Amino acid sequence: MGYQEFTIEGRNAVIEAFRSGKTIDKLYILDGCQDGPIVTIKREAKKGDTLIKFVTKERLDQMSETGKHQGVIAVAAAYEYSEVSDILALAKEKGEPPFIFLLDNIEDPHNLGAIIRTANLAGAHGVIIPKNRAVGLTATVARTSAGALNYTPVAKVTNMAKTIEELKKEGLWFVCADMGGTTMYDLDLKGPIGLVIGNEGEGVGRLVKEKCDMIASIPMKGDIDSLNASVAAGILAYEIVRQRLQ
Amino acid sequence: MGYQEFTIEGRNAVIEAFRSGKTIDKLYILDGCQDGPIVTIKREAKKGDTLIKFVTKERLDQMSETGKHQGVIAVAAAYEYSEVSDILALAKEKGEPPFIFLLDNIEDPHNLGAIIRTANLAGAHGVIIPKNRAVGLTATVARTSAGALNYTPVAKVTNMAKTIEELKKEGLWFVCADMGGTTMYDLDLKGPIGLVIGNEGEGVGRLVKEKCDMIASIPMKGDIDSLNASVAAGILAYEIVRQRLQ
Repeated sequence: MGYQEFTIEGRNAVIEAFRSGKTIDKLYILDGCQDGPIVTIKREAKKGDTLIKFVTKERLDQMSETGKHQGVIAVAAAYEYSEVSDILALAKEKGEPPFIFLLDNIEDPHNLGAIIRTANLAGAHGVIIPKNRAVGLTATVARTSAGALNYTPVAKVTNMAKTIEELKKEGLWFVCADMGGTTMYDLDLKGPIGLVIGNEGEGVGRLVKEKCDMIASIPMKGDIDSLNASVAAGILAYEIVRQRLQ
Repeated sequence: MGYQEFTIEGRNAVIEAFRSGKTIDKLYILDGCQDGPIVTIKREAKKGDTLIKFVTKERLDQMSETGKHQGVIAVAAAYEYSEVSDILALAKEKGEPPFIFLLDNIEDPHNLGAIIRTANLAGAHGVIIPKNRAVGLTATVARTSAGALNYTPVAKVTNMAKTIEELKKEGLWFVCADMGGTTMYDLDLKGPIGLVIGNEGEGVGRLVKEKCDMIASIPMKGDIDSLNASVAAGILAYEIVRQRLQ
């Protein structure tokens, strides 16, 4: 939870930071620099939605802490991922039954940010995301979370189905959002709960779905197929809030 | 409701189409063309989030209906705005009490698209947006609405407060989403209703808020200020759906 900024200097260090999946918020590059490593860095920056600023040598010298910037300085946001145990500890500390969001491969950073924002305001104790494929905590996610990333712990796990198994031992029930389930108003969503939200296009994966205790459906009256993933997460989360308030 | 595509050919016609606020979905430009009017067209296209394709003269000649494309052909989506009376007629036709979304200056096209998508699935009969300032039915809105724009009528009005006054004569009650109101679960949201959603940053404007019969608040337990506008719209819309289902 929380984050602080730190700088990474030099071509190899910056390339390495991108490759390791670190979130780079801003990149300062010597104006006019066009060689191979710089081109590589710019390409990685575009992939990761990083803001690039082209600056003078004087500016880089000023910012540099090592004096060896080689024409590039990255500003990384050190979002610390939490552990699942931190999330459970937070619920215990607040004296509340655990309420956790599990996101099965959300790919759009705007959706991830909006869902973390919703998790915070719905009083959830944390968000669990998978290590592979899905989007991580990029600068866009931080921005769209509107600050929630500083308060709501986000844990990254290798195997979502296994994590669900482990959390069941802690007494949690799991509900996933999908079509063809029980209308959400007819389910008992009080008590320790994990809310599973699927991928934007494909929904919840089969292996994860099989681990869930309940399938909740949002009643749909319209002509199209599905709600935006972050809107669906919000509607389901607040049905849980409503039942908990009763 | 519904939309059809049509093409606009020639530099002045395309510039004029952009200037008049028409939604241009795609733009075909002769590859290598760099003169003044083309630069202007490209700049307008960027503002409007239009997809640009650079093509050969042969391709343009093939697409052209007039034979006078001057190196540029635009494909415009003719989203027809509906009238407020169309929305009321749709409710009547379905034999349901009217349920209308009123958006007081939503600025982000992704939010507008997601809200139209939600309106469709929540069974609302239409969406009303203001003529000025707010975002209109751009290509991005159409895309994020996931097809809902083809089914859910959207009307554009000059004065939202006046429209509310007029709809009150038709028996509608108005609820706006804002902090410091009554918890939404404690309000009676059955019957003919208008749901008013405010601007992303500033919420609902004072003049519009004064016309509302109820102020509904979403319970917030977290550390930050507010939900994403399209998530908040979804949560409130589905509280209305829940109450109507009972």
